[in-house]
Amino acid sequence: MKATIPFYTAYLLCLVLSVVCVVLVVHWNFAYREGFSWDGQIKQFNWHPVLMVIGLVVLYGNAAVVYRVPLTWTQDKLPWKILHACLLLLALIFTIVGLCAVFGYHNTNKTPNLYSLHSWVGILTSALFAAQWVAGFGAFLLPCSPLPLRAFIKPTHVWMGAIILVLSVVSCISGINEKLFFALKKETNKTLPYKQLPPEAVLGNSLGVVIVALALVVLKILSNQTWQRPEPRNEEAGYRQLPGDDS
Amino acid sequence: MKATIPFYTAYLLCLVLSVVCVVLVVHWNFAYREGFSWDGQIKQFNWHPVLMVIGLVVLYGNAAVVYRVPLTWTQDKLPWKILHACLLLLALIFTIVGLCAVFGYHNTNKTPNLYSLHSWVGILTSALFAAQWVAGFGAFLLPCSPLPLRAFIKPTHVWMGAIILVLSVVSCISGINEKLFFALKKETNKTLPYKQLPPEAVLGNSLGVVIVALALVVLKILSNQTWQRPEPRNEEAGYRQLPGDDS
Repeated sequence: MKATIPFYTAYLLCLVLSVVCVVLVVHWNFAYREGFSWDGQIKQFNWHPVLMVIGLVVLYGNAAVVYRVPLTWTQDKLPWKILHACLLLLALIFTIVGLCAVFGYHNTNKTPNLYSLHSWVGILTSALFAAQWVAGFGAFLLPCSPLPLRAFIKPTHVWMGAIILVLSVVSCISGINEKLFFALKKETNKTLPYKQLPPEAVLGNSLGVVIVALALVVLKILSNQTWQRPEPRNEEAGYRQLPGDDS
Repeated sequence: MKATIPFYTAYLLCLVLSVVCVVLVVHWNFAYREGFSWDGQIKQFNWHPVLMVIGLVVLYGNAAVVYRVPLTWTQDKLPWKILHACLLLLALIFTIVGLCAVFGYHNTNKTPNLYSLHSWVGILTSALFAAQWVAGFGAFLLPCSPLPLRAFIKPTHVWMGAIILVLSVVSCISGINEKLFFALKKETNKTLPYKQLPPEAVLGNSLGVVIVALALVVLKILSNQTWQRPEPRNEEAGYRQLPGDDS
């Protein structure tokens, strides 16, 4: 338990960065981009960055580190597994609604969907996330799932979990960068263009930096072997065969 | 050695994707973007994507997996360590010249430097890479570096190495996305705009997908414990105290 203080320092940083992420992305779209609606116009598009950042980075990142909290290690794993799945389901719903926001906006305005590199990486990330959630639910939450299958899938599930977070960051940073170039054009913007770094540009760039910082903290927490929930010692079998779900 | 065939399959994929990356980024800037020069104009800018992709992703990624090649495990580590450092030095030189290309282009054309989110993440990535190279050289190649220091730094060096690759991908994808929006504008482009996916857009997007695929293969190779070079068994000391550099 001597690793508790460094862990909680990292975890506190994760929580603080999460709150800052949410505040910055909501404030950006509310104060600088005219807020939100669902009418096929630009205010509908504004849901896209908000829901993708909160879904794919904030909720996703926090769901990923749930098992690492030492306070939970003495308790049964199942409730934490359900919390992990529920947070990720919420993240997936945010992601899907965030995609609907941009598809609807494009369709209303006769703009093609999925042409930019940002959209290619973004849709790949979203598809992998959905597949990961379904596979994770089937393998780790359905009671009929055999334990050898769980043990076989777990390393891939953990690795894919980290990779999807990386792809989420790639998608978010390329999207915020693209949005700032679109929004802060000399000919359409009421303030200075992007290249002169008006307050909105500093805000958007700072949001990007905070997203990167949050993802790095989550990846650091995930990669630290001493912060992993201790599993029952049955290395030979590779999975738990005792009552109380620990796979 | 039973892991040899899966490793070499992944390694072959890494090499093939590396070649595809180089071909795509050079072909893009040569065939669609008027090629290269060093005169402060757009042809000077064209060195930027080419040198950053080859430096920060291709050379960097291949340097990172050098130690994983089983063929080298029976040999003294020092020559491979020198190859690792030389490939990364070459990658760092490409990165610095790639930055000079864009700074020079901006300065000639009175465009501010470092205003976009892409540039913020990119300069952070480059600075971390330079610091990592200097720290790695000092800790692992200078003979005066004490072994306990090497053992202490190694996990951080390995983790930072992977994180810098992730940040490189974030920088490259946001940069390619930005460049395609800049280059394929309706009002300036001789072909179709980006949103109608002309051949150049498909080429640029495909380059982005190949960069992501290459990085994932490198991260997969790095994360596989069974593909790590076997180190001398002196876990208690945490570092090798025998002749023949293995730290």
